[in-house]
Amino acid sequence: MDVNILLFNDFETLDIFGPIEILSKVEEYKINYYSQNGGTVVSAQNAPIITESINCASYDGILVIPGGKGTRVLVNDLPFINMLKEAAERSLYCLSICTGSALLAKTGLLDGKNATSNKKAFEWVKSTNSNVNWIKKARWVVDGKYYTSSGVSAGMDMTLGFIRDCFNEQTAIEIANHIEYIWNSDCSKDLFA
Amino acid sequence: MDVNILLFNDFETLDIFGPIEILSKVEEYKINYYSQNGGTVVSAQNAPIITESINCASYDGILVIPGGKGTRVLVNDLPFINMLKEAAERSLYCLSICTGSALLAKTGLLDGKNATSNKKAFEWVKSTNSNVNWIKKARWVVDGKYYTSSGVSAGMDMTLGFIRDCFNEQTAIEIANHIEYIWNSDCSKDLFA
Repeated sequence: MDVNILLFNDFETLDIFGPIEILSKVEEYKINYYSQNGGTVVSAQNAPIITESINCASYDGILVIPGGKGTRVLVNDLPFINMLKEAAERSLYCLSICTGSALLAKTGLLDGKNATSNKKAFEWVKSTNSNVNWIKKARWVVDGKYYTSSGVSAGMDMTLGFIRDCFNEQTAIEIANHIEYIWNSDCSKDLFA
Repeated sequence: MDVNILLFNDFETLDIFGPIEILSKVEEYKINYYSQNGGTVVSAQNAPIITESINCASYDGILVIPGGKGTRVLVNDLPFINMLKEAAERSLYCLSICTGSALLAKTGLLDGKNATSNKKAFEWVKSTNSNVNWIKKARWVVDGKYYTSSGVSAGMDMTLGFIRDCFNEQTAIEIANHIEYIWNSDCSKDLFA
């Protein structure tokens, strides 16, 4: 199955590379790096990543969207939001990390659904769409095919939770052990809320 | 101060992007991405990163070296090891993550020093240089200017430890809170040994 990473300028580096580290340990998953138009995307931590255009994506896989300061601009970028809406609608699963959920919220696809986001930016994220049932105290939230996590590092815990849901607990624990990661496996336990 | 990230093909993605996330939160640090010859470097998780040649580096900053399956080849690559030796010698601090310590060990700069590495690859890493005092049960090890961490995720705990040593505990805690990371702050506590 394709894992389609959707990058944009000023994305938060660990938002995406934590989940990628975990997803890459699943043999069935193939990681692909996309952006709206392809080319080099530079993270908020200055890392230049080469991407393909999202038009090349298979769409029927797992879409993963980071947060970061780039989201502050993109929530008002209608062509980007429309592209994201189509990509998310056509994906089997959609995972967002940190303020990536503000972008997802803007598509309207989270309307009436439970979701969470970064705790330091929570009021701003809430303000982007009041039709979403924003849950403050959560390491991550699952609603149907939509997984949304709290800030940065929470994306790793959510991704292991996603692996648990798709496969089983043992698989998630084995991956966490392999990368020597201490998994915070209870999505309702949120020390930063 | 310059933070010089030294990448190579098949480096482990989170080894480096975890520490970068943390180091980037220190205002005084500037993150630079290098490789031996510059150009595109592809991680073991298929992420293509654009780098400059290490010859462009200022050297007198903080050198950071990931691990990953690429190290299995590079331990026998004398030009690479010689380049690493010079870069490490000229740096104020040198941080390695996971099997990155096998590369450092090969330079001889860890001879007679304490160091650690990934727990799944520990016997192999030990075999690369028996003059290093390899410590198995440690989340990370500090010996002078050399910081070496256990596998993948341990790099984040070590980097926060490095920030604590360079600044103070409060600065490290603030960064951990900012990225919603639950810091395992005791370097002697190692659940994976």
